[in-house]
Amino acid sequence: MDAADDMARRLLAGERPALARMITWAENADARFAAALALVYPRVGRAWRIGVTGPPGAGKSSLVNALIEKLRERASTVGVLAIDPSSPYSGGALLGDRIRMEERTTDPGVYIRSMATRASHGGLARAAVDALDVMDAFGFDWLLAETVGVGQAEYEIAGAADTVLVVLCPGAGDGIQAMKAGLLEVADVLVANKSDLAGADQLVTDLEDALALRALSRNRRRTPLVVPVSAHDGSGLDALLAAIEAHRRELEGGDLAALRREKRVRQVRRVVGERLDEVLFGSAGRTEQAAALLGKSRTPYDVAEELLGSILASTHRTRA
Amino acid sequence: MDAADDMARRLLAGERPALARMITWAENADARFAAALALVYPRVGRAWRIGVTGPPGAGKSSLVNALIEKLRERASTVGVLAIDPSSPYSGGALLGDRIRMEERTTDPGVYIRSMATRASHGGLARAAVDALDVMDAFGFDWLLAETVGVGQAEYEIAGAADTVLVVLCPGAGDGIQAMKAGLLEVADVLVANKSDLAGADQLVTDLEDALALRALSRNRRRTPLVVPVSAHDGSGLDALLAAIEAHRRELEGGDLAALRREKRVRQVRRVVGERLDEVLFGSAGRTEQAAALLGKSRTPYDVAEELLGSILASTHRTRA
Repeated sequence: MDAADDMARRLLAGERPALARMITWAENADARFAAALALVYPRVGRAWRIGVTGPPGAGKSSLVNALIEKLRERASTVGVLAIDPSSPYSGGALLGDRIRMEERTTDPGVYIRSMATRASHGGLARAAVDALDVMDAFGFDWLLAETVGVGQAEYEIAGAADTVLVVLCPGAGDGIQAMKAGLLEVADVLVANKSDLAGADQLVTDLEDALALRALSRNRRRTPLVVPVSAHDGSGLDALLAAIEAHRRELEGGDLAALRREKRVRQVRRVVGERLDEVLFGSAGRTEQAAALLGKSRTPYDVAEELLGSILASTHRTRA
Repeated sequence: MDAADDMARRLLAGERPALARMITWAENADARFAAALALVYPRVGRAWRIGVTGPPGAGKSSLVNALIEKLRERASTVGVLAIDPSSPYSGGALLGDRIRMEERTTDPGVYIRSMATRASHGGLARAAVDALDVMDAFGFDWLLAETVGVGQAEYEIAGAADTVLVVLCPGAGDGIQAMKAGLLEVADVLVANKSDLAGADQLVTDLEDALALRALSRNRRRTPLVVPVSAHDGSGLDALLAAIEAHRRELEGGDLAALRREKRVRQVRRVVGERLDEVLFGSAGRTEQAAALLGKSRTPYDVAEELLGSILASTHRTRA
């Protein structure tokens, strides 16, 4: 058994196995994680966190590869977290992009970690933020968090970053699909990827129109930039980095501390939710109890109320 | 103020405004919902629930339209729940598919309801299941739940159905993308949509290969069928309905009761989680308390522990 204080010491000493191990603790909701995190927490908060999301096929992994290269050219170090819900296939021969990314890990300035969706009930977002905190404490300058899917949980993970890139590509009515999927809502920078393909100009126009329409319909602090990029031939990558850095400067000159505090409160909620779920349903007995109560044809609300009875009573006393 | 018992009575009397209103209660986590649901719950469980998920652009809405038509030809009634995370645009001129679907609502045998993602922390999946329960009690024969995104939360919603359709279309390396996104994991039937387009045969072959590989690598009860469909020209729709009905017969002859109970226990967990989150963070004061505790540079785990202190203590007493 590794002790939490030993793990924290090794992480701060720059030992890669400790980095990998501590993220596994986060992923498994290991009881030692909280103590180890507390010991390294003073070092958390220096890295700039970039969330990368967008529909399947938009070229997110290639873009992340290209960004790693650009950042390494500037001698910055980069930690990458790839959130991949397909655990049985991770690392298999089918995931060419991911494997090309992981080849890069011979470079000591880059660390790439995949995280599969074992956890449910919000556990994945909680573990992803924990992993970014660990990489941050380890000392990487930039962190990239890439999600494979595009939905509520993935937006939540991307939204835990400082700058959110939404990656789209030409074709398949992406302009409209982007709106349907609520992607515009989470974007700080919209990346019109595969700018070397036909239809790329149309995508940029569609996105800019959609953003203009949206700016009219709601009062929003800031409209995201649209940046055409080809991860394939490298064009637009400097403009993308410039857009990210402009967003960073804007936040650092204003709301960064408040925004990061909000994001940490959200993490507190996730930890609280997961702990309570574990207490209430972590044992087979509790789940069976819930199933047995349902067997009397009561609604989920009735059963929830009964399970919550004692807890809520004591909470109300505390608040009174 | 509508009373819960009045609402339940009107729902069971077949009044559409009561149907719409009660789903809004579910969406808003209105306190009256639980009481109204309890009154109609004996009528829940007769509809067959079909979840429809897949990447943006795969043609899910067109497929849902085509399925509605097919089911209506058989004089079955259909309730549709469309989970759409882009609230600001819902019902706007941009969502052609959705509007074409809603035109159909002049047919008294069809009800279509969009649900936007206001809720967070698992609230959307909870509200979606509630809405399906309400439609079920109202008396529809078939329920279709379509998600727009493709990620953890969307899989969870689709997984609350009895039969899960995963919709894919040719192009953009969808075969591999499907695996990356974990779509195969949730599918009872794989719909190879747009079978009239080039590359359709390749998609079917890719999916069948992937399924064969998967069957080798893991011990799974059942391998999903791959059904080529063109929602555009209508081909394959009868085969799709036959596949759905075969899946239904299989479950009805076996695990249906146990599977539905499992799904209801999951709903209990969602209700419990949401209630506790509301108790702990529902007031601005509590959130500020969490933010203030974080201000002392403590980790989210420390703060969660402090907020949970009294609750966990009382729970341990209850369990002891």
